[in-house]
Amino acid sequence: DFVDVDPFGTPVPYIQGAFGAAADGGVVSLTSTDTAVLCGVYPEVCRRRYSSLPLKNEFKHETALRILLNACRRIAGMNDIGIEPIAAHSTRHYLRVYARVRVGAAQADRSRRQEGFIASCEKCGERGSSSLPIVMCDGCGAGTLSAGPLWIGPLTDPRVVGAALNVSRRSNLGGGAKALDALLGLEYFPPFSYSVERISSALKVPGVSQSEVMRRLASNGYRVMKQPFEKTGFKTEATYGAVAEAVSAVSRDARLEKAPLHARPT
Amino acid sequence: DFVDVDPFGTPVPYIQGAFGAAADGGVVSLTSTDTAVLCGVYPEVCRRRYSSLPLKNEFKHETALRILLNACRRIAGMNDIGIEPIAAHSTRHYLRVYARVRVGAAQADRSRRQEGFIASCEKCGERGSSSLPIVMCDGCGAGTLSAGPLWIGPLTDPRVVGAALNVSRRSNLGGGAKALDALLGLEYFPPFSYSVERISSALKVPGVSQSEVMRRLASNGYRVMKQPFEKTGFKTEATYGAVAEAVSAVSRDARLEKAPLHARPT
Repeated sequence: DFVDVDPFGTPVPYIQGAFGAAADGGVVSLTSTDTAVLCGVYPEVCRRRYSSLPLKNEFKHETALRILLNACRRIAGMNDIGIEPIAAHSTRHYLRVYARVRVGAAQADRSRRQEGFIASCEKCGERGSSSLPIVMCDGCGAGTLSAGPLWIGPLTDPRVVGAALNVSRRSNLGGGAKALDALLGLEYFPPFSYSVERISSALKVPGVSQSEVMRRLASNGYRVMKQPFEKTGFKTEATYGAVAEAVSAVSRDARLEKAPLHARPT
Repeated sequence: DFVDVDPFGTPVPYIQGAFGAAADGGVVSLTSTDTAVLCGVYPEVCRRRYSSLPLKNEFKHETALRILLNACRRIAGMNDIGIEPIAAHSTRHYLRVYARVRVGAAQADRSRRQEGFIASCEKCGERGSSSLPIVMCDGCGAGTLSAGPLWIGPLTDPRVVGAALNVSRRSNLGGGAKALDALLGLEYFPPFSYSVERISSALKVPGVSQSEVMRRLASNGYRVMKQPFEKTGFKTEATYGAVAEAVSAVSRDARLEKAPLHARPT
């Protein structure tokens, strides 16, 4: 049982109908070409259509997908229907989400508890999420930008993503396999990502390589993955302090390597 | 052009259809028998159905009507439709709202700016409203209870209410005239009311008469009216300080009158 909504522009007017038409346990998928609105180019339009404040920053596509899913959650919830996201992607000019339909007031309430806010400190690059809006940065005390309400729970069902990846590989669907592969492990991470550029600029150190920082965090025992919805950025379970420490360490090592031998500390 | 929704239980599943079916400038009316949910008996259900936190206090019916109107506003807004409330009432076990339909994204955005929160201090009885949740009481610094998001704009169109009152009187519709009469002047007041009982208890003075307090505020130059949606309570444009002062003054005068002549200050 599968309902696919692929309209011109925003899918919001069709969400109630789509979730109402799907059977319990069925799947609804929605395309949105409303990318600019969901990514924060027109915040007033986003508030009108999705009842949520977007954030135009380095993980705006992930935020956009989470705003879209929470709109599905809210509208399905009005009819006592819960949602369970299965997968999401941001491709070219459009966004797309897939969610399982769970009929019942208890299921709708369970979904509601995945609603929250994401905060981004524009000064130091710290990120956070909470069930309430966050106004101050834990890291540096500066005011933060807060997006939401949006879906802060899991975006993927790892079993479905894993099975779909197998099918894609067996069927030689290169593009599909690549997109699904990028989602593997997403369930372990918080609903935001870090920008190495932003952090190195806050720390006032020269730019460093993202893959080096990810390697450093991994060797310190933290899970890391590339941000699947953006061109750059990475996700990690490490605290901001640990991320900033890794950026500093990588930058220090790079400077040491570049320095002539006689200038190195002995 | 008039669409009336009078369902069993919550009208939320029918809001999108009702506002979509009405013509520009037409009127949608909705009945809700979901009174307990909107009045704060089941906050989780209210959050699921209306995406709003209710407040079970002395003006819970007004809060309920404002939550219902904001749900209309939010859902109509998804289809680029704005709303203009005309009238609202709480009668026996049900709530009812009437709103004009204004088609267009600009109209929907104008309606959205009437969304906000109402705060109630359970300690001193102070109230307030704001476009953001209020966490601390202006009056006494205690934590407040905040309801919303809800409609903090006008609940009535005074021209329509006035004209309907004339018709009701000419047609000897006693009940209708009484209900409409109670709404006259509502547009001048903030979206909450005060409880004399709550304030006299916070001030630790004996209970005083609400009509005396209202008279005192009126003679001090403030507009006052009885809370039309509750059994007791009154609305005023006066600050909480002025209201508390009036309660103190009325209480002092009552004690003076009761005291034997020889005990009165000379």
